[in-house]
Amino acid sequence: MPTIFQIPTFIQILEFIGTFAFAISGIRLASAKQFDWFGAYVAGVAVAIGGGTIRDVLLDVTPFWMTNPIYLICSALALLWVIFFRKHLIHMHNTFFIFDSIGLALFTVVGISKTIDLGYAFWVAIIMGTMTGAAGGVIRDVFINEIPLIFRKEIYAMACVIGGVIYWGLDRLGVDAALTQVISGCCIFVVRALAVKYQICLPILKGE
Amino acid sequence: MPTIFQIPTFIQILEFIGTFAFAISGIRLASAKQFDWFGAYVAGVAVAIGGGTIRDVLLDVTPFWMTNPIYLICSALALLWVIFFRKHLIHMHNTFFIFDSIGLALFTVVGISKTIDLGYAFWVAIIMGTMTGAAGGVIRDVFINEIPLIFRKEIYAMACVIGGVIYWGLDRLGVDAALTQVISGCCIFVVRALAVKYQICLPILKGE
Amino acid sequence: MPTIFQIPTFIQILEFIGTFAFAISGIRLASAKQFDWFGAYVAGVAVAIGGGTIRDVLLDVTPFWMTNPIYLICSALALLWVIFFRKHLIHMHNTFFIFDSIGLALFTVVGISKTIDLGYAFWVAIIMGTMTGAAGGVIRDVFINEIPLIFRKEIYAMACVIGGVIYWGLDRLGVDAALTQVISGCCIFVVRALAVKYQICLPILKGE
Repeated sequence: MPTIFQIPTFIQILEFIGTFAFAISGIRLASAKQFDWFGAYVAGVAVAIGGGTIRDVLLDVTPFWMTNPIYLICSALALLWVIFFRKHLIHMHNTFFIFDSIGLALFTVVGISKTIDLGYAFWVAIIMGTMTGAAGGVIRDVFINEIPLIFRKEIYAMACVIGGVIYWGLDRLGVDAALTQVISGCCIFVVRALAVKYQICLPILKGE
Repeated sequence: MPTIFQIPTFIQILEFIGTFAFAISGIRLASAKQFDWFGAYVAGVAVAIGGGTIRDVLLDVTPFWMTNPIYLICSALALLWVIFFRKHLIHMHNTFFIFDSIGLALFTVVGISKTIDLGYAFWVAIIMGTMTGAAGGVIRDVFINEIPLIFRKEIYAMACVIGGVIYWGLDRLGVDAALTQVISGCCIFVVRALAVKYQICLPILKGE
Repeated sequence: MPTIFQIPTFIQILEFIGTFAFAISGIRLASAKQFDWFGAYVAGVAVAIGGGTIRDVLLDVTPFWMTNPIYLICSALALLWVIFFRKHLIHMHNTFFIFDSIGLALFTVVGISKTIDLGYAFWVAIIMGTMTGAAGGVIRDVFINEIPLIFRKEIYAMACVIGGVIYWGLDRLGVDAALTQVISGCCIFVVRALAVKYQICLPILKGE
């Protein structure tokens, strides 16, 4: 029986929320560029599954979304949501920021954990975790023909890197795996939230 | 003996026509952006083999063009064709539309069939078929620094999806595999032709 | 003991120089687009390892940089270099041109050699060699939202192709493998240097 007909676990609920929020971010930016419904769906899917797909291709495992349709269904629901509740989106800015940050935290931790389980070094796992969280947004920005946002603004990928280093530290200290994942996920969430609240940015690289 | 010295089958002739037309579409758009011959060739190759390459990487099989040079030779012929017969291209608009639609139909059916043969679910196969047909054009548009055309205009990828659903339906009904492929390929061709003739588009996603 | 603590071989020194120069090229173009430090690092890494990563994904082997952190460390040093010695970069134009050409030559030869060792045909190896040398710059240009430079200017990828054909010719003539690699690498270097010095370009493809 497919997962969606079982009672979902807490992690699955978080994953659904994160996928939904990631897809919404792609669909909203697509709508600003006059994409049609198909294009908007692809932009949403790109954010929701793009990072994990690149990770799985590099790790040489079957891309995660090819074994369970839930991620594409979730992105389709996000498209319907934008079509029907478009006018309310602006009032839900904070909600979506929280959902998106949950997704970032969860996807990063999932990416790190999967890479470690496959026997790679920790520095590879941190890169894979960061890619899982942040590379989808880069693909989205390539599709909408803009310079990727995370290369110029916001502590976004750096939150993943920081969370990854904390994951590594806790693992080294012998902390329980589940606890390690919860703590490093929370750190990613908090770092990103603080960075947005206090408008903390990385320095811009000055030209010649 | 390599395939090109044998008498080609009907499918191989269709594949050659499709590859040629796909490559032409990349080369023509490249010429509008002042690409040099090398850049134009890469743009042509990207359309001709890009979609199938992404499919094969996701399916974890050797990219199809790495085992037979015919696809790259065919793209090179397309480049020569544009260099020498540039001025006649405008009069051949309808011919190229037909060739391009043959390519779209054939590549989609090939992508679906290959994915099914590897044991994946039908919904994965429909996505892979659509990618085989349509993703090359997305790569081309990224190279020429434009928003991908299929995200904003034309029933193009949707024709692949419709053909894929018909493929699935016929397969379910127990129709012979070859007949299933011919019918669904024809449907893709017809859907695209009708969409262009009657200017049928998907709705644009309105912004906030 | 990791490679970096051993006395490096001559090839490793060349590889380090090439990686450094490739990363510098990504970081400099990123700085012109107001990237932050993270974005500039990603742009540098994209040039340094992007081509080899695409090659390894197509060849279905583990991407080379995932087994040795030296390439990412080298890119990080390139970022620090640009941050601290930014003002001197303009005076080092010729040095970087030479380093970059060394990288192009070495990466191409490494790409050809690796592909041959995996049992692929020579024409596949030449393509993989050219990708190893030139595809990273394409990814960089997609990230900074420009039409890839090598599609419009400079004999860059063509130098790789010419070097690849020479590699094939020498191999056919039964020349020793090491000598074949040195000669074809030098040819790539020389072809590129001559092309830049005498401003030799491929013809632009004229539009309709």
